[in-house]
Amino acid sequence: MVTVRVSINLKPSLLDSAGRTVASSLRDLDFSEVQDARIGKTVTLQMEKYDEARVKSMCDKLLANPVIEDYTFEVIE
Amino acid sequence: MVTVRVSINLKPSLLDSAGRTVASSLRDLDFSEVQDARIGKTVTLQMEKYDEARVKSMCDKLLANPVIEDYTFEVIE
Repeated sequence: MVTVRVSINLKPSLLDSAGRTVASSLRDLDFSEVQDARIGKTVTLQMEKYDEARVKSMCDKLLANPVIEDYTFEVIE
Repeated sequence: MVTVRVSINLKPSLLDSAGRTVASSLRDLDFSEVQDARIGKTVTLQMEKYDEARVKSMCDKLLANPVIEDYTFEVIE
């Protein structure tokens, strides 16, 4: 069994309003050193076998929205 | 400026229904090698200075729900 972690993040050029709200809330809690926050998601897949092209295809078809998101993935164990 | 990535995941003992739906959808798309999927989130913080205890406090107070979620964080640059 192979574990693959896919990380999906909003493209850097796009405003992350949820992240901005998190940063603002952290500053309100006196964590004044926080300048910015951006929120992403991860999908950790348990797979019988690993094929890079197939994982890329999963990302393009279902896991990420390539119009607004970037993704990376890595085998973690 | 320091960049810290906080990874937040549902505790392994809890059912991740969204992840299960993703795994099922991937299998429906003929990615039959997918056994399971679990979904997590990341918060990437831009900070003026890094203090491990303060980042831990941010996680406990706002970023994660320690009752149902585990978190890890690392300085990435």
